[in-house]
Amino acid sequence: MAKNKKTPRPKARLPKGLRDIPALEIRAQDAMLGVIRRVYEGYGFEPLDTPAFEYTESLGKFLPDQDRPNAGVFSFQDEDEQWLSLRYDLTAPLARHVAENFDSLPKPFRRYQVGPVWRNEKPGPGRYREFIQFDADTVGASSVAADAEMCMLAADALEALGIARGDYVIKVNNRKVLDGVLEAIEVTDEMQKLTVLRAIDKLDRLGGEGVQYLLGKGRKDESGDFTKGAELTDSAINNVLGFTGWGDTKSGAMSGVSSNAVTLANFEDYTEGSVVGAEGISELAEINKLINAAGYDDGRVVIDPSVVRGLEYYTGPVFEAELTFETKDEKGRPVRFGSVGGGGRYDGLVARFKGQPIPATGFSIGVSRLYAALSTLGKLKQTEVPGPVVVTVFDKDRMAYYQGMVQKLRDAGIRAELYLGNPKNMGAQFKYADQRGSPCVVIQGPDEKERGEVQIKDLIEGAKAAASIASNEEWRAERPAQFAVSEDKLVEAVRDLLARHES
Amino acid sequence: MAKNKKTPRPKARLPKGLRDIPALEIRAQDAMLGVIRRVYEGYGFEPLDTPAFEYTESLGKFLPDQDRPNAGVFSFQDEDEQWLSLRYDLTAPLARHVAENFDSLPKPFRRYQVGPVWRNEKPGPGRYREFIQFDADTVGASSVAADAEMCMLAADALEALGIARGDYVIKVNNRKVLDGVLEAIEVTDEMQKLTVLRAIDKLDRLGGEGVQYLLGKGRKDESGDFTKGAELTDSAINNVLGFTGWGDTKSGAMSGVSSNAVTLANFEDYTEGSVVGAEGISELAEINKLINAAGYDDGRVVIDPSVVRGLEYYTGPVFEAELTFETKDEKGRPVRFGSVGGGGRYDGLVARFKGQPIPATGFSIGVSRLYAALSTLGKLKQTEVPGPVVVTVFDKDRMAYYQGMVQKLRDAGIRAELYLGNPKNMGAQFKYADQRGSPCVVIQGPDEKERGEVQIKDLIEGAKAAASIASNEEWRAERPAQFAVSEDKLVEAVRDLLARHES
Repeated sequence: MAKNKKTPRPKARLPKGLRDIPALEIRAQDAMLGVIRRVYEGYGFEPLDTPAFEYTESLGKFLPDQDRPNAGVFSFQDEDEQWLSLRYDLTAPLARHVAENFDSLPKPFRRYQVGPVWRNEKPGPGRYREFIQFDADTVGASSVAADAEMCMLAADALEALGIARGDYVIKVNNRKVLDGVLEAIEVTDEMQKLTVLRAIDKLDRLGGEGVQYLLGKGRKDESGDFTKGAELTDSAINNVLGFTGWGDTKSGAMSGVSSNAVTLANFEDYTEGSVVGAEGISELAEINKLINAAGYDDGRVVIDPSVVRGLEYYTGPVFEAELTFETKDEKGRPVRFGSVGGGGRYDGLVARFKGQPIPATGFSIGVSRLYAALSTLGKLKQTEVPGPVVVTVFDKDRMAYYQGMVQKLRDAGIRAELYLGNPKNMGAQFKYADQRGSPCVVIQGPDEKERGEVQIKDLIEGAKAAASIASNEEWRAERPAQFAVSEDKLVEAVRDLLARHES
Repeated sequence: MAKNKKTPRPKARLPKGLRDIPALEIRAQDAMLGVIRRVYEGYGFEPLDTPAFEYTESLGKFLPDQDRPNAGVFSFQDEDEQWLSLRYDLTAPLARHVAENFDSLPKPFRRYQVGPVWRNEKPGPGRYREFIQFDADTVGASSVAADAEMCMLAADALEALGIARGDYVIKVNNRKVLDGVLEAIEVTDEMQKLTVLRAIDKLDRLGGEGVQYLLGKGRKDESGDFTKGAELTDSAINNVLGFTGWGDTKSGAMSGVSSNAVTLANFEDYTEGSVVGAEGISELAEINKLINAAGYDDGRVVIDPSVVRGLEYYTGPVFEAELTFETKDEKGRPVRFGSVGGGGRYDGLVARFKGQPIPATGFSIGVSRLYAALSTLGKLKQTEVPGPVVVTVFDKDRMAYYQGMVQKLRDAGIRAELYLGNPKNMGAQFKYADQRGSPCVVIQGPDEKERGEVQIKDLIEGAKAAASIASNEEWRAERPAQFAVSEDKLVEAVRDLLARHES
């Protein structure tokens, strides 16, 4: 470290948009991921891990067109001057894996993967540059039964996590139907198409009136910012709004009384004459049939015209998992959690490598968002690990002896540790034990040593007692929640104490 | 995807030095990490996760001095032109975390962390650019009791994983003792010091004779390559070799009859007059006392002069976990697995940020190496997940019905899936089920449908039977391991079949 004395001291700080994850969250998140994993395994999915970065050209979407690409992804060059990028999702690496190992894979190939992904995007509150995704994908199945399965899988995972039926919905749409609507209103310009789809995507947030402006001349929001509209004709606007079912009492997601069959009938009205639209509707009808047969048509899986999703990516059915229960934001206003995951069919992704199209469909859970939702719902399984029993150091020269006590406790399966800080001050040792959430501390001073005893200070009971005891004098006289036991009863006494607090 | 049609197809390939991890390894490794985690939790360590990358200046060691740094680490710049680097270990990010959150942390702070790290180094057989480390560190404890604890923790973890006592050793040394030896022979030049330490580090591999040359004029290896020596005098060479105990029957790691007390007495002989050497020996003696009291002096923890480790990093005790059992390499020659982890005291690392030194000590397991060793030993807990039951598709129009069967099986806790590939060919469906390791497939053709039955084909029994049946005709006549059950007995029959194969 000698060299560093000359350089100025660096500031200890996390890079922008990154965070450390504390013990409580790691444990609860692990439990949560375990639940999802069991559901996915039940459906026959197998785990696969791919590395953190890939050749940039493999990831595709964000090909670097600059010397130092930083649009959306984090990229760097290896010693052969080849560009590498941190994965921005788990689907692009899967496509590379499938293309690379195509012949040896079972087909269809069902895999799940959980891990961090990285985005070089502007961070904000709750928006990080590293976050965890949990993906399930089926590659090599062109049947929409694979898509229907994704929807059921998503519903089962959310319920296994304790989210009640009715508190979530898996929304399904089809990119082909959206294309059919655009065809029916004769929109052919790619930019105009995008603007229309983006407007539909905002239905949840802005309602039909807001979307109406975005489909037409444009819309000024509350802050005064103006968003240019799609410049559709009035009749085209009516068609798009009619397709979304907005304002319609007999169909559409916004009406609250729709059934999937009614929604599909409405789709037919607004895609008339479009071959691709009819194909999309037929796929959705098939999905609906499978959903019905499995009983998921009870509001768990709902066909919804407002689901748009990744525009350059999906080629058929698209899904969105939304939490529908209301909660309060920090200002006490009711808010919905909204999307915690989504996916769809992407028949083009493996084709990038293979030439021939390989059908694929998948669903991805945003683990951090779902974690936040479960936390709000109080549904996190806090696999509460008790703090360790702390054996204090009264006499520095007897460390080895105290350590023997720790070992006995640990051998009995009790989480335990020796106090390793500066042992001069017994108060600091108690404070440390408090901070660690220790159930109790063990003390052996010279008096106890002579009597072959240890003192056990019950920190949980002690905290309760402290709240009800008026004065310091009273405290010292009573010494609540502290007791002596014969040293050979140490393990037994601690075990009893832990059992008392557990029950 | 339209845009990509114009660009040439990328080749599907993993970046150099990276790999995908298959299901079997993920499951076995997860089980292995769970065992280590339980041991570490038992010692009172708490999990902490830090992000994949840090500001390069925070990581320190490999500060980029070029426009595009690639010495040892993968680095890139963010939009503020600040250099970021993928973590190359879990200790440097811990130092940043501690310095950043010093006031709010319990002190001492015991944390563990498991995760990938990345090295921009030349990959080779078994050497990857992404690999997993499992670290435990205690920050804020200057007592060598914290170091002794690391050694015991490492031993306990290896035993919990099924490595027998005697098949591993935790070796301990102290950088201060090494400095003392150098002081006693009056080596002051930093480069010469390094050369001496590197020579000692090679004792295991080259033996005393080889090291003798490296301490003197230099050494020509089998390939004819010459390594320059430290140019020590003959008497200095004898001192260094005497310190290592090489050729000595009463002391030193190589003699096979050493005890820690004898080794320490020998250390005293060769560090005479060095204050820092005496300090190092006293620390090792204290560690030895704690090790003895805890019973780990039975060969589990051994003081060993040949342990050198990270030269710019450690400031006191250093540890190395070695597997000592012999195995055969691919050519049938006996080899030792060697090091699967190591660590030591690094009192300078947090000081980089804080100015004042913060004592810290840690131990890091190389998860991939340990995994390979356990695999060779047959000690991997293969939490064997059975392949899914595959419900085949005889008639495409009855998908929803078959899916209902899958759902019934899954609801009964049986891993099950619908065949989602092209259902035309029943043979392909059986082959798929074989590839997935399915215990059985379920078939319902028109005949079975009429009778309200399903056929269950036992793939495990079938494979056994196939081995003992001579001809295709005999096979067709007997149809071994295939039977029909009433459809309402499906779950029961599959459950019985699974139970038969489990026992």
